[in-house]
Amino acid sequence: MAKKTKRLQPTLPRGFVDRDAVEIHALEQMFHRIRSVYERYGFDPLETPLFEYTESLGKFLPDTDRPNAGVFSLQDDDEKWMSLRYDLTAPLARYFAQNFDALPKPFRSYRQGYVFRNEKPGPGRFRQFMQFDADSVGAPDPSADAEMCMMMADVLDELGLNGKFIIRVNNRKVLDGVLAGAGLADEPEKSLIVLRAIDKMDRLGEEGVKLLLGAGRKDESGDFTEGAGLNDDQIARILAYVTADADADQMFDVLKAQVGEDGTGAEGVEELRAMQSFFDAAGYSRDKVKIDPSVVRGLEYYTGAVFEAELTFPVTNEKGQTVVFGSVGGGGRYDGLVSRFRSEPVPATGFSIGVSRLAHALQLVGELGNEEKAGPVVVLVMDKEQTASYQGMVSELRKAGIRAEMFLGASKNMAKQMKYADKRNAPAVVIEGSDEREAGEVQVKDLAAGKLASKDITDNAEWRAARPAQVSVKRGDLVEHIKALLEQNAAEEE
Amino acid sequence: MAKKTKRLQPTLPRGFVDRDAVEIHALEQMFHRIRSVYERYGFDPLETPLFEYTESLGKFLPDTDRPNAGVFSLQDDDEKWMSLRYDLTAPLARYFAQNFDALPKPFRSYRQGYVFRNEKPGPGRFRQFMQFDADSVGAPDPSADAEMCMMMADVLDELGLNGKFIIRVNNRKVLDGVLAGAGLADEPEKSLIVLRAIDKMDRLGEEGVKLLLGAGRKDESGDFTEGAGLNDDQIARILAYVTADADADQMFDVLKAQVGEDGTGAEGVEELRAMQSFFDAAGYSRDKVKIDPSVVRGLEYYTGAVFEAELTFPVTNEKGQTVVFGSVGGGGRYDGLVSRFRSEPVPATGFSIGVSRLAHALQLVGELGNEEKAGPVVVLVMDKEQTASYQGMVSELRKAGIRAEMFLGASKNMAKQMKYADKRNAPAVVIEGSDEREAGEVQVKDLAAGKLASKDITDNAEWRAARPAQVSVKRGDLVEHIKALLEQNAAEEE
Repeated sequence: MAKKTKRLQPTLPRGFVDRDAVEIHALEQMFHRIRSVYERYGFDPLETPLFEYTESLGKFLPDTDRPNAGVFSLQDDDEKWMSLRYDLTAPLARYFAQNFDALPKPFRSYRQGYVFRNEKPGPGRFRQFMQFDADSVGAPDPSADAEMCMMMADVLDELGLNGKFIIRVNNRKVLDGVLAGAGLADEPEKSLIVLRAIDKMDRLGEEGVKLLLGAGRKDESGDFTEGAGLNDDQIARILAYVTADADADQMFDVLKAQVGEDGTGAEGVEELRAMQSFFDAAGYSRDKVKIDPSVVRGLEYYTGAVFEAELTFPVTNEKGQTVVFGSVGGGGRYDGLVSRFRSEPVPATGFSIGVSRLAHALQLVGELGNEEKAGPVVVLVMDKEQTASYQGMVSELRKAGIRAEMFLGASKNMAKQMKYADKRNAPAVVIEGSDEREAGEVQVKDLAAGKLASKDITDNAEWRAARPAQVSVKRGDLVEHIKALLEQNAAEEE
Repeated sequence: MAKKTKRLQPTLPRGFVDRDAVEIHALEQMFHRIRSVYERYGFDPLETPLFEYTESLGKFLPDTDRPNAGVFSLQDDDEKWMSLRYDLTAPLARYFAQNFDALPKPFRSYRQGYVFRNEKPGPGRFRQFMQFDADSVGAPDPSADAEMCMMMADVLDELGLNGKFIIRVNNRKVLDGVLAGAGLADEPEKSLIVLRAIDKMDRLGEEGVKLLLGAGRKDESGDFTEGAGLNDDQIARILAYVTADADADQMFDVLKAQVGEDGTGAEGVEELRAMQSFFDAAGYSRDKVKIDPSVVRGLEYYTGAVFEAELTFPVTNEKGQTVVFGSVGGGGRYDGLVSRFRSEPVPATGFSIGVSRLAHALQLVGELGNEEKAGPVVVLVMDKEQTASYQGMVSELRKAGIRAEMFLGASKNMAKQMKYADKRNAPAVVIEGSDEREAGEVQVKDLAAGKLASKDITDNAEWRAARPAQVSVKRGDLVEHIKALLEQNAAEEE
C-alpha cells in the first residue's frame, strides 16, 4: 500500500471567494446606505432560506436560454428535488403565496442575500454572489414601476454616483407590439434576433442595428453575425422604433405609430407615458431616469415595464477598449410569477442590484470606503510568568471600551511581536519588562505617530516633540493615557 | 392525457424557515452587540463562501458519531465533491492555511454565517442555521483559551444576561488522563459510556452518574440505560474526579490525584490552573466562569480546553418539566485542524454561538428587541387621475428623510387603504380628495394617536383635544406637519 503523505491543498472550488475585513467593512457601509433608501421608501426586510423546492423556483432563470440549467440541485430524502436559489425573486413569489392571508397588500420587501449559479465562472463572474433586491407584490399600476426606477436612482445618488448613472426604462408590451407591427408575431426565432439587435443599439448605433436586422454584420475582428433577414419595410419600422428620441415628448406618438392604436403594444406605450408623468411630478429629470426603446431584458420573465441601472463613466475593458461601465442592476414587472401558486393574478414589480459589480464600480470612482479599520492596542508579552498581569491590563482597556489584546503567539521575540502589532494596524503597544514593573510603570509606544507624521505635517520636528514615539507612564495611568492617545489620533485623522 | 390543473404548493423543504422584518431587526440588534464585543477584543470579521471542497471539511463534523454524514454534498463538473459548510471552523482552517504567509499570526477573526446540516429537522433544529464564531489561530497558550471564555462572558453580559449564565470550562487532556488513570486507556467503547455519564452529572447528580458507571440506570419512565460496568475502584476514581469542588482552590490537587503527576492529564490540569489565574487577574468570578470537571464536548475534535456557555434560568421543556435553559454556545482548543493542510503544527482555539438558540433565550427573558418598527406614512389614492400629484407628496416626504409611500394596490376603496396603512403600522395617512384639492389642503389622519392614547394617558379627553385624530393642513405645510407629528410620537414613546 502506498504511504499517504500528501497534504490537503487549501483551495476553494472555482467561482467562490473569501472576503477579508477591509472588504466586509466597505460592503457593510454600502449596504447600510442602500438599506436606508429602501426603508425610506417604505420597504421592510425579508429573508428566505438558501434552499427552495426546485419546482418552486420554476423555469424563470432570467437571462438565459437554458432554463433549469445552471442551478445547484440536490434530491432530498423524500425524493423531492431542492435547489439553491438562483435569484431573490422566485423565493419571494413562494413566500408571498405561502403567507398570502397574513401579509399587507401590496407587500413591499427588500432582500439581501447570496444566490448561486452552477455555471462556468470567469473574471467578475462567481458561482456564489450577492443580490440586493426590492419588490412590490400586489401592485398593478405603472406608479409602482415608476417608484422602483426612482428608488434605484436615489440609491445610486446615496452611494455618491450622482451624475454618473442613468436608469433606462422600457416596456415588454411595446417590444411585443413592435414585433407584431413588423409582422413577426409568429416568428419567435426571428423575433429573438431582432430583440438582440435592438439591445445592441447603444454599442453599434443605427447602422450596426440595421445590418443585424437585415443580412448580418461583420465586426472589426472579422467575425460575422447572421442577421434577422427582414425586408426593407420591416427594417424601417424597427429602426423608427429604436431611434425614437427619448428626450422628446412626441416619442410616445412615434412608438404608438409602430405598435398600432389598440392592443397590448398601445397599452405598453400608455404605461410608459404614465411612468414619465410620475418621473416629472417627482422631479426626476431625463438625464437620471429615461425612457429608452432599446432596453431589452429577461425575455422569459418580464411582462410589462423593464428597467436597467447603467453607470455611464468610462472604463477600460479586458480588450483595452474604453467602454461605459454599464449595468449594475435592473428589474421590471413580472405579473406571472406568483400566479403559479395561486389562481388569482398577482401583479408584481421589482429590481435587483448586483452587489459585487456595484461595489467594484464604487471602488473605481473612490466612493467605496476601503480604509483599514484601526487595529487593537497590543500588550506585548515580555515575560511569560507575567501573563496574568498583562491580561489584567488588557481587561482594563477593554472595560474602558478600548479595542485591545495581549499578544497570544508563541514568540517571545519583541521584534516579532512589534511586527505583529504593525500588521494589525495597532495604534499603540504597551510594554512592561522587569525594570518597568519594579518602577510601577509601563512603556507606551505610539505606532500611529509615525504614520500620521508621514501624511502632511509641515514642521515634523516640532510635531514630534509634541508627540514622542514612546513614553513611560504610571501603571495606574495606562487607560487614561491610551484614551488620550486615541482621541488625538481621531482628531488628527480628520 | 390528464388535464394539468394542480397548482404548485408554496412550501419550503423541511428544516428551512423564513425571517420577517420584526425578527430581522431584532437579530440585527443582537448581532451588533455581539460584534461590538468581538471588535473590542481585537477580532476582525472574515467571510468564507458557503461551499468548500468536501475533503477540506474533513471528518470533523462535531458532536456526532457519524462523521461525514449529515452534510449537503454535490459533485462538481471536474468530478470533485463539494459540500455546504457544516460549521465555521473547518472553512477557517482552510482559509488560514491558504493565506498563511499574508496573515498576522496569531490570526484573530470572527465569522457570522449560515451553516447546513443534512439531518432530520425537529423543534428548534433546522437544516440551515446561523453561527457566530470567534477564533484565535496560531495561539498556543491557555491565555488564548481563557480569553475566549471571558469574551463569551462579556458577550452574554452585553446582551443583558448578566447573572443568568455560567461559562463552564474543562480540558480534554484531563478527561483522557482520568480515563487512563481508571485503566480505560485502551477501552474506547467503555470510555465513551463513561464520558456520557460524566456529561450527565448536572442533570442526574452523583447517584445517577454512579449507576451509569456501574450496572446501569432506570429512569422515571422505566427506560433502562446500560452502564459502563466499571468495578468499584474505577467508579470511585471517576466519581472523585467528577465531584471535585469547582469553587475550591484545592480542586486542582483533587484532579491531579486522578490523572497522575506526569503526562498529558497533568498537563491539562496545569492548563486549567493557568486559565483560572487569568480569570482571577481579570476579575471574572466563579459564578461567571467556572472550571467544571463534568464538561464533556466534541470528542473527535477538541485537543485541550473545552468550554460551554450555559444559560441558567429555568424554562419548561416539551415534557412540561422545569429545566435550566442550557447551552447557547461553546468551543475549545483544536490544535489538529489546520495541520491537515500544513506540516507545522498550528494551535487554535475558538468558540461558536448558536444564534437561533441565543435569540430564543433573549426573547424569553425580554432582552430581544421585538417591537415593530414604525411603518411609512401612507398617502392614499383617492383619485387615480391624481396619482402623479400623490406621488409628488411622497417624494417631498422622502426627500425630508421621512419614511413614506403611496398606496400602490388596486383598490380604490378608502376603508381598504386605511386597513393597509394600519397593517403597515403607519404613523399617519395623508388624504387629498377633490374638496381638499380645491381648497389647497390635505387631511392628515394621525394613526399613532389612538395607539399611544391606549397606553397610559390619564386624562384622555384633554390629551385628545391637544392631539386631534385628523386635521386639515395647507398642502404646502404637509412635510412640516408630518415631521412635527413624528417628533411628537418619538417623544411620547420614551
